[in-house]
Amino acid sequence: MKYVRFGDVGQEKPGILDKDGRLRELAGVVGDITGDVLTDLPVVDPENLPLVQGNPRLGPSVGAIGKLICIGLNYSDHAAEAGMEPPAMPIVFMKANSAICGPNDTVLLPRGSKKGDWEVELGVVIGKKAKYVSETEALDHVAGYTIVNDVSERAFQTEMSGQWTKGKSCDTFGPVGPWLVTPDEVDDPQGLDLWLDLNGERVQTGNTSKMIFSVAQIISHLSALMSLNPGDVIATGTPPGVGMGMKPPRFLKEGDVMELGIEGLGVQRQEVGRDG
Amino acid sequence: MKYVRFGDVGQEKPGILDKDGRLRELAGVVGDITGDVLTDLPVVDPENLPLVQGNPRLGPSVGAIGKLICIGLNYSDHAAEAGMEPPAMPIVFMKANSAICGPNDTVLLPRGSKKGDWEVELGVVIGKKAKYVSETEALDHVAGYTIVNDVSERAFQTEMSGQWTKGKSCDTFGPVGPWLVTPDEVDDPQGLDLWLDLNGERVQTGNTSKMIFSVAQIISHLSALMSLNPGDVIATGTPPGVGMGMKPPRFLKEGDVMELGIEGLGVQRQEVGRDG
Repeated sequence: MKYVRFGDVGQEKPGILDKDGRLRELAGVVGDITGDVLTDLPVVDPENLPLVQGNPRLGPSVGAIGKLICIGLNYSDHAAEAGMEPPAMPIVFMKANSAICGPNDTVLLPRGSKKGDWEVELGVVIGKKAKYVSETEALDHVAGYTIVNDVSERAFQTEMSGQWTKGKSCDTFGPVGPWLVTPDEVDDPQGLDLWLDLNGERVQTGNTSKMIFSVAQIISHLSALMSLNPGDVIATGTPPGVGMGMKPPRFLKEGDVMELGIEGLGVQRQEVGRDG
Repeated sequence: MKYVRFGDVGQEKPGILDKDGRLRELAGVVGDITGDVLTDLPVVDPENLPLVQGNPRLGPSVGAIGKLICIGLNYSDHAAEAGMEPPAMPIVFMKANSAICGPNDTVLLPRGSKKGDWEVELGVVIGKKAKYVSETEALDHVAGYTIVNDVSERAFQTEMSGQWTKGKSCDTFGPVGPWLVTPDEVDDPQGLDLWLDLNGERVQTGNTSKMIFSVAQIISHLSALMSLNPGDVIATGTPPGVGMGMKPPRFLKEGDVMELGIEGLGVQRQEVGRDG
């Protein structure tokens, strides 16, 4: 199944795609696509649900995300490109929840930002509490997959007194969606093509087979550090082609358009604007 | 006013202290002490509210915390003790929301933890959205003050592939409370004594006058990076005396008791246990 949240910011309603990709209303079945619902997603026949009229805004594909955990430097080809040694363990940081937005919302560069950058990433949505789970058990805790653009401000991230948080948590730096795709529709989370286009030019190309730490390894590792709860989202790292790695580096400017996608998980599209 | 949340985990009810320090029920006035309520805290006479019977558990003094932002290395005497240069800007990291617990809940060392550590900190609770606010305006956005024990696992923090998140986000590593004290009862947030006892022995002693970046400067700085929303909490750094800085270093073990307090904001008390 492909779940969707649509409507105005903060007032999103649940939806589901039918076999023709049309959006159907799920509000009569569940209140929202949030952690408590993810533990037991409803089995429905979308064809029996009302069609959504018009072309509403899409919200983040998960509501009330508990925490958005990100993994750094997790693609072997990206590490090689950057001339960096693969990390011995997953690099973990958090993105502020207030950065989360819809998959097609405008990404706003904050005041003073000159080094905005893009990162297409496979998002893993937790559906069952995970604590001290083995790699073998890990994927049983996944409610589905989605796309995250881990938008970053490289100067804020690395030139402002340590820790990456500052460059990762700006408002609108966390587009999530468009869909939450259940695992039965994803053959192998370690075999998905992913890409990002900047103004129509392909800049990132990758496949999740190049992850240094697999989705199962990441879940197992994180679950030994903290509880992963239904509605938490993990962004699993980005393939080569970010602006910071280009020679010369290339950064986001107002009017740019990012389009990014992952095989079977849909496409995001963000225009770039300026905040304040 | 001193607001309190009491009751079982996840089922806390709002309360308020009367002039004799007795706990009164606030459930008839507000649903909970959360962001939406913090924007306009009710003016009530606690003497007219029902007394709470018994001695219930206290929960985090703020419910549904949106994000728990922490400031690193923010006391000049702590930086000097550690032999480190004061940072040029506030060091910012996030603690996972799932780490938040009540002020007297047991702190659980995760499996494999050998370097658990303590950090008494002044917690600032946001009451009004802050974005691009000046230092002059900053304190107008504060709903109140509380205590945060920024419990840390130093090996997880510094020996596991970069970024501090891993050592800061373990379950129960974020006791918040006991009270949310409104600014009218805090003469000067930059003149508060704070302390922490380990098994009855004073190990941390400080005063918020030694902050490198004041509460107002921190709020202004953060608000240029991201929205601070009602219900967000900022832990503003810790004074000298953490276990990592001792010679030899001293770390938490099962059965230890941490007691910590800040002038006018009450006292926390946590026993130390083992998780799993």
